[in-house]
Amino acid sequence: MLKIALSGCCGRMGHVINDIVSGREGMEIVAGFDINTVQYADFPIFADPFEFTGECDVIIDFSNAASTERLLDYCEQHGTPVVICTTGHSAAQLDRIRAASAKIAVFRSGNMSLGINLMSELLKQSAAVLGDKYDVEIIEKHHNQKLDAPSGTALMLADAVASALPYDAEYVYDRHERREKRPAHEIGISAIRGGTIVGEHSVLFCGRDEIIEIKHTALSREVFAVGAVDAAAFMAERTQPGMYDMGDVIASHK
Amino acid sequence: MLKIALSGCCGRMGHVINDIVSGREGMEIVAGFDINTVQYADFPIFADPFEFTGECDVIIDFSNAASTERLLDYCEQHGTPVVICTTGHSAAQLDRIRAASAKIAVFRSGNMSLGINLMSELLKQSAAVLGDKYDVEIIEKHHNQKLDAPSGTALMLADAVASALPYDAEYVYDRHERREKRPAHEIGISAIRGGTIVGEHSVLFCGRDEIIEIKHTALSREVFAVGAVDAAAFMAERTQPGMYDMGDVIASHK
Amino acid sequence: MLKIALSGCCGRMGHVINDIVSGREGMEIVAGFDINTVQYADFPIFADPFEFTGECDVIIDFSNAASTERLLDYCEQHGTPVVICTTGHSAAQLDRIRAASAKIAVFRSGNMSLGINLMSELLKQSAAVLGDKYDVEIIEKHHNQKLDAPSGTALMLADAVASALPYDAEYVYDRHERREKRPAHEIGISAIRGGTIVGEHSVLFCGRDEIIEIKHTALSREVFAVGAVDAAAFMAERTQPGMYDMGDVIASHK
Amino acid sequence: MLKIALSGCCGRMGHVINDIVSGREGMEIVAGFDINTVQYADFPIFADPFEFTGECDVIIDFSNAASTERLLDYCEQHGTPVVICTTGHSAAQLDRIRAASAKIAVFRSGNMSLGINLMSELLKQSAAVLGDKYDVEIIEKHHNQKLDAPSGTALMLADAVASALPYDAEYVYDRHERREKRPAHEIGISAIRGGTIVGEHSVLFCGRDEIIEIKHTALSREVFAVGAVDAAAFMAERTQPGMYDMGDVIASHK
Repeated sequence: MLKIALSGCCGRMGHVINDIVSGREGMEIVAGFDINTVQYADFPIFADPFEFTGECDVIIDFSNAASTERLLDYCEQHGTPVVICTTGHSAAQLDRIRAASAKIAVFRSGNMSLGINLMSELLKQSAAVLGDKYDVEIIEKHHNQKLDAPSGTALMLADAVASALPYDAEYVYDRHERREKRPAHEIGISAIRGGTIVGEHSVLFCGRDEIIEIKHTALSREVFAVGAVDAAAFMAERTQPGMYDMGDVIASHK
Repeated sequence: MLKIALSGCCGRMGHVINDIVSGREGMEIVAGFDINTVQYADFPIFADPFEFTGECDVIIDFSNAASTERLLDYCEQHGTPVVICTTGHSAAQLDRIRAASAKIAVFRSGNMSLGINLMSELLKQSAAVLGDKYDVEIIEKHHNQKLDAPSGTALMLADAVASALPYDAEYVYDRHERREKRPAHEIGISAIRGGTIVGEHSVLFCGRDEIIEIKHTALSREVFAVGAVDAAAFMAERTQPGMYDMGDVIASHK
Repeated sequence: MLKIALSGCCGRMGHVINDIVSGREGMEIVAGFDINTVQYADFPIFADPFEFTGECDVIIDFSNAASTERLLDYCEQHGTPVVICTTGHSAAQLDRIRAASAKIAVFRSGNMSLGINLMSELLKQSAAVLGDKYDVEIIEKHHNQKLDAPSGTALMLADAVASALPYDAEYVYDRHERREKRPAHEIGISAIRGGTIVGEHSVLFCGRDEIIEIKHTALSREVFAVGAVDAAAFMAERTQPGMYDMGDVIASHK
Repeated sequence: MLKIALSGCCGRMGHVINDIVSGREGMEIVAGFDINTVQYADFPIFADPFEFTGECDVIIDFSNAASTERLLDYCEQHGTPVVICTTGHSAAQLDRIRAASAKIAVFRSGNMSLGINLMSELLKQSAAVLGDKYDVEIIEKHHNQKLDAPSGTALMLADAVASALPYDAEYVYDRHERREKRPAHEIGISAIRGGTIVGEHSVLFCGRDEIIEIKHTALSREVFAVGAVDAAAFMAERTQPGMYDMGDVIASHK
């Protein structure tokens, strides 16, 4: 039975993590850390990690950037792998995380969704195989409150494709004043905005008389919690210190 | 049995029309008109319409702009309805067509696809019902040889939506330098280009927690021939002179 | 300013209604009714409708079947239109609702989503226009906890299509032991089940070289609350007693 | 410059191959073999391969099963790699093909589409990574004249997924009499039939709040010709005798 400690257990994502772990076999939450120690589940909740005297195989951190340092102190002292899902760290805090990875196994990933990271990997392979005979187009859809366009994830996926193409791709965002055939070496990126769409990313490889499409749809922001639990299962088995990310989780399945 | 005469019967679209009519019950081609009179089917082929002394209920014209005038002479003399699918008419030729419509029933449509015209009608109704609480986004996909973007059909569909919205819509083609929430009164139009895609038009109405999508996919350019045969069946029953288009075909089904 | 009273205001859907109304101009909630009278918003909450002595233009009911009767008493006495969103009424309770509709305007709909009801209307028109030359196929997707297949909504949409087709359609759910061409007069209905998909319904009209697709995607179950607010705006203007449903809302926009 | 000889050059697929090769740089057709020796392009056409005294790097065979043996004689004598796209070989002919592969490089693939074969590879990896926490569903769409359901390609893709899953998958084709939650270990396979759809295969991995979809769309049957040309480019560089298929082409790009 995989024993998980959950930092930030009383926040929204903490509740989601608890819900996901409850639904999976072979894992359980044995302790929670949170300033708010209101009991809502079976496991005990501590205001500070060092109050916890039991044992755990891995810690998931969904608290906040300010709490990460204290958590790393605990992890280093006990040799516990940690999955850091908090964001917004300062340069000094990032240095602290890197330093910790010399002693313990630390997980941190630009995008916590297993699906998006898998998609990134599949895109690289597809681009390598399909090469310069298929036109690449990316379409992403998000809600009407999103400020930036295209999404950071769309650009991450474009970069993944571009890294494996046999040509230097040019990203194109607008064709409406164009009166010309599509140049072969461009990647079109279109941003759709509307309603409450959570997030959809689609990459098309359009060849002569065939299209291969790889598409990811997020149904809620909770998808990052699912990735964190997957990462925890992976990290609990890391015996070597170092920095790990979702790419390592995917590579471990090959 | 509906009797059709087919002008331009030996061209590519003429062959397609013949193929479609053969597959439908209750209609047949009784004569073809073409400069090239090589026999390829059961019906006789004449170099000039006036050589044909039989009877027909309607004529489909897939010849060329230069032949339309002679064909209209024949139609006027015999009171035969005509479906004009040729394009590229001069101003003088267009005048001639309009003049004919004072004497006979003449069909001519901006887009010959029944599906696209139906979609246009459905969009107007959707926009009227969903009003200003749903964001409208249009995505069109075409092959990499297409020169213009967005497609004329995409703009036609955008205009259909805009005509029924309770606000003045602004068409937006590019968001990549934007750092703001989606303004409520815009219609996003994205043009995807790749491979040999024949033509796909999708319109999304994105509301709070729901999306309604209406989408048209053309699988080949032969879809215009299907529309022409549908129009011929409709026109054979028009007893009044006048100009008709695909909107009339759709209205007749309500 | 449209004044709404909200019955069942402290339940999950009550909170969602409050959230939606807050985001719309020209309407406000002036009172809530709920056994639980914990204040969570600006409006006063009463345990019983008759405690409310203010005025309202329409009442939305998201309480429970047992509370509907008392609410109808209040509505009849004050001549207030009511939007009934509760379900699970007994035969006697349904009789009571019908009786109320002789005195006041009562709204009740099989499916509360504006989008699904609009889709149903669009499908009827499409079937009437496309007739027997396009094959109809329905695909619905839902989460893996759903017990029935196909969904009730899919069958409702199939019935809408079938009612407008020129032939007697046969619903087909399985083709895997078939070795024959598709019979023209069938409607294929496929049920996809997986993960946490909220609900997706797609209807395809597949003709010669073109496909028209109408698709509805629900992003959360809150979509029914949106429909209730739309219905309230419509009902506040009904001056005649009677039973109304979402079809009337849609018809009012034509 | 890659020199290709094209067996069956005057058939429909022969013309398509010629068209594709003309559009690619670095390759040309130097000879055609066909019983019908009507000249339609720049290269000479011979009724029998042995009449051709020039040189070529690889031969593409789109003739017919009966001609394959004579072609293999030629290839063995000249040490020329061959891409066999003909189908319908007898057991004896298949033995002959295998025997040839002891002396020369022979390409033969169950499905000639590069895209479908790549998809098969991507599916295996996805299934290995996503494992038993994502429900797998397959949807395929084909025209209304297709006799079998589901398509052979859909079953091939299902087998690819199943081979990499950590459980024994059960294929399910019908859920309409079911009143139960989706069993975890099934793969749903739905067959849509309508109009003139060439072929679409979609595989969904549905997890908690995310969906990964991999989809292949064929726009015409010419897509097999594209795969043949890709295979020819690959085979021209094979210096070892043996049987090769599209999986080898894909593996060569990694």
